[in-house]
Amino acid sequence: MKKIRIFDSTLRDGAQAEGISFSVNDKIKIVEALDELGIDFIEAGNPSSNPKDLEFFEAVKKIKLKKSILVAFGATRRIGINVIDDQNVKSLLKAETQAVAIFGKSWDFHVTDIIKTTLEENLAMIYDTVSYLKENNKYVIYDAEHFFDGYKHNKEYAIKTILKAQEAKADVIALCDTNGGTFPDEVYEIVCEVKKYINVEISIHTHNDTGMAVANSIMAVKAGATQVQGTILGYGERCGNANLSTIIPNLMLKKGYDCIDKTKLEEFTAYMRYIAEISNINLLDQLPYVGSSAFAHKAGMHIDGVTKSSNSFEHVSPSSVGNSRRFLLSEVAGRSSIIGKIQKIDPSINKDDEVTKKIIDRIKELEYLGYQLEGADATFKIMVLKVLGKYKPFFNLERFRIIGDDPLGKQQVLSASAIVKIEVGGKSELKVAEGRGPINALDKALRESLEVFYPSIKNVHLTDYKVRVIDTAEASAAKVRVLIESSDGLNSWTTVGVSNDIVEASWIALVDSLEYKLINDLEKTGE
Amino acid sequence: MKKIRIFDSTLRDGAQAEGISFSVNDKIKIVEALDELGIDFIEAGNPSSNPKDLEFFEAVKKIKLKKSILVAFGATRRIGINVIDDQNVKSLLKAETQAVAIFGKSWDFHVTDIIKTTLEENLAMIYDTVSYLKENNKYVIYDAEHFFDGYKHNKEYAIKTILKAQEAKADVIALCDTNGGTFPDEVYEIVCEVKKYINVEISIHTHNDTGMAVANSIMAVKAGATQVQGTILGYGERCGNANLSTIIPNLMLKKGYDCIDKTKLEEFTAYMRYIAEISNINLLDQLPYVGSSAFAHKAGMHIDGVTKSSNSFEHVSPSSVGNSRRFLLSEVAGRSSIIGKIQKIDPSINKDDEVTKKIIDRIKELEYLGYQLEGADATFKIMVLKVLGKYKPFFNLERFRIIGDDPLGKQQVLSASAIVKIEVGGKSELKVAEGRGPINALDKALRESLEVFYPSIKNVHLTDYKVRVIDTAEASAAKVRVLIESSDGLNSWTTVGVSNDIVEASWIALVDSLEYKLINDLEKTGE
Repeated sequence: MKKIRIFDSTLRDGAQAEGISFSVNDKIKIVEALDELGIDFIEAGNPSSNPKDLEFFEAVKKIKLKKSILVAFGATRRIGINVIDDQNVKSLLKAETQAVAIFGKSWDFHVTDIIKTTLEENLAMIYDTVSYLKENNKYVIYDAEHFFDGYKHNKEYAIKTILKAQEAKADVIALCDTNGGTFPDEVYEIVCEVKKYINVEISIHTHNDTGMAVANSIMAVKAGATQVQGTILGYGERCGNANLSTIIPNLMLKKGYDCIDKTKLEEFTAYMRYIAEISNINLLDQLPYVGSSAFAHKAGMHIDGVTKSSNSFEHVSPSSVGNSRRFLLSEVAGRSSIIGKIQKIDPSINKDDEVTKKIIDRIKELEYLGYQLEGADATFKIMVLKVLGKYKPFFNLERFRIIGDDPLGKQQVLSASAIVKIEVGGKSELKVAEGRGPINALDKALRESLEVFYPSIKNVHLTDYKVRVIDTAEASAAKVRVLIESSDGLNSWTTVGVSNDIVEASWIALVDSLEYKLINDLEKTGE
Repeated sequence: MKKIRIFDSTLRDGAQAEGISFSVNDKIKIVEALDELGIDFIEAGNPSSNPKDLEFFEAVKKIKLKKSILVAFGATRRIGINVIDDQNVKSLLKAETQAVAIFGKSWDFHVTDIIKTTLEENLAMIYDTVSYLKENNKYVIYDAEHFFDGYKHNKEYAIKTILKAQEAKADVIALCDTNGGTFPDEVYEIVCEVKKYINVEISIHTHNDTGMAVANSIMAVKAGATQVQGTILGYGERCGNANLSTIIPNLMLKKGYDCIDKTKLEEFTAYMRYIAEISNINLLDQLPYVGSSAFAHKAGMHIDGVTKSSNSFEHVSPSSVGNSRRFLLSEVAGRSSIIGKIQKIDPSINKDDEVTKKIIDRIKELEYLGYQLEGADATFKIMVLKVLGKYKPFFNLERFRIIGDDPLGKQQVLSASAIVKIEVGGKSELKVAEGRGPINALDKALRESLEVFYPSIKNVHLTDYKVRVIDTAEASAAKVRVLIESSDGLNSWTTVGVSNDIVEASWIALVDSLEYKLINDLEKTGE
């Protein structure tokens, strides 16, 4: 099995993404996760341009990495100065990483029109910087910025720049599609051509501006690149960088390359979700391999096919990347899909049991009312328990009331209050809470009253809240469907509520969410 | 310029996506938008599997399309029956579309192990169905399901299936990568090979399970396919279908193919956002060409480069797809795109006027708060009038208050009340109304109080109400965007409101809607 080295730039190029802002602590956590996963190189920041990155490189020195090599990123020396005197190159060395990645210009137009120097001086900048870093015992990755555009405009000069890096003894030359506009067939042809001139290891660094960064990386590997640069989940400026969460399984599962340990690949989805959490970015449901919809089947015929033979509608097994198959319930879906979900709750139930029919009838009823149980696994479970007669309410609602006032344009004012009165085992509890709008207030008041009886509710927090208007033509009296995602730090689950009143729809989903937590707590203690 | 025909399946394969559920009305709106855009084929549903789709095909008959050809989707006849007696084929004909797409099996394993029939019967099913539909004067697209997997397992049989479709006079043969596991180089080689056997037009239909659906479509075109199937924004089961919002600009701007009118491509981003709104799916910021981050630059060096020469860090111009450049640190305006909209309100305003800058600044402020003015024409107009100093409020809000009670599970109960007190010309009016939930109550109370002063408000009714949660991680305190569509029987208009409090967001959109009506009434009477 041929080894492809993975170079992760989540903490450097990924940090250029809109909406991403890593703290030093976030970065440390991500470095530790990538090291556990077995990523070969972690490019962790630019110590010369960013004081936060310098602080990070100080902090990371205390951590002993098992597998990964840390990389500091910077540029070639400035125009017209001696490399020894270059402040940026000095801070690169100060980061004390084993490896250094430096970028230089390979597109003649960028040399003459953007940084405004001569083509000769640019070659000298490359040579001086790479050889100086090599003298300082660094493993040097030379990033040939805009290589593909440069090659298309002036092949001879583009090749000259990487020959200079090779002459200066760079360990790896990374061919960059900086603007992300290159097509996969072009990448393949150009990498093949470059291989004729260069005998240093070749790396590929692509951006997703034509939606083909993954394909471009794959085609470069086919042409002979043995290192792939990208970011976890494709974070990056504009349309993002090549997505390593897709590339690694593509290379390993579909082409038989060796990138990370096979056992780590089987935990891959959990790692990706963890990194998404730290980055505070929703992991896209549709993401190949690791998204929650990646192996979700809705069409009845597909569900039927997968049940007969998984490879009928799945190109790889979900467990090969630590993800799982889901059958979505919907008007398009067939019946045989539901029994698997029921058996997860009670394995003794069979397809032809009376109770199975009852459950299916109840699903149809709920769908008619506007519920969508696909994804709302917690509501599904509670519904099944109700049909089985195994559900006992944890509290009785005596009353709730919301009062909302015009917030008068003041943002984030606590414009609403909610009163909730519940009863548990003969004891009543009345609570009031303020919130940003009536739903937030009601959410708070319900939790506060329940916590009196069930302290574990304190650990539950809502991580996602979605509203969908069902029959939009009914306008402000339209039915709405509210989807709530909750987490207790260990698990996460989704519930759904439907009503003409958005407050009630939210209430239904909220109650299911909190009861689901309590049901699972009980199941764990074995009662 | 060579023509590539675009085949959109948003309403059929896209509807398989988790979280997507189109109403008949949504589907009509999307058909109209795709037709305006000039998409060649619109696959709009499966009349044989879904009663809602049958209802849609009835409704769509009333609409005269300018450019697009409507396609109904179905399967080959069932095993062992005469095609004339097949209920599904009958409903396909009942849809009365000019074109029909039918799928059949090309992978021998699916024939023998999933649908469980003989390889010969499967060929007969393909032949019978295609030729019967041709006899009924349909334009027939034959979808060769799992073609690439089938080809890899049993090339001879896979080729036989499409030869059968050709023999039966299919107009187009679509090669489908149903499981989405094929790589771009394989797609290229296989399509080249198929071209040796088939002289019918070839279409490509790919899924994104390896993150390469766009690249696979592009490589198929390179190999000779002249029709591309996909969905707007890549909606679809699992990881989605090939994303037409990326493929169309890729083919037109980067490879010089002809897909839609160039002028329509220049409005492309607005169309994509409109369709995303109707689908109630957030358009991914990072999406190539049409995402809001697609041309957003954060790195200082990139901003500097783009300022010197746009192609230094942009592979195409943002205006070529109707998108705009954004600098995340120091924003610079896209004036020319907005001036047209401003001149509709006041033709005397020019691009370089001071007031144009003011309006653009205000738009940026609102966008930062979470507003999206695309489509919310009425809110846009009121905002411009406010900046111009031409806006006078029609009423002052003294106070509103909502009170909501637990509807106790009773459906459609009037569970909330709203009190609204407004003042017009020194006269106050206090009204109370009940509604299904607080927003409905508030809507009613505001109208009732306004009608006292402005009787024409009676003619206004809301025709659409949508809610979008913006920062979902804030859960029940998340910011929401409310979109309201109103009509007075003659005209219809859209307004938008944003707040952490859904009641306030609705109130803002509601007030804009009613004021817009009053402003237009005044303009008509010439004041």
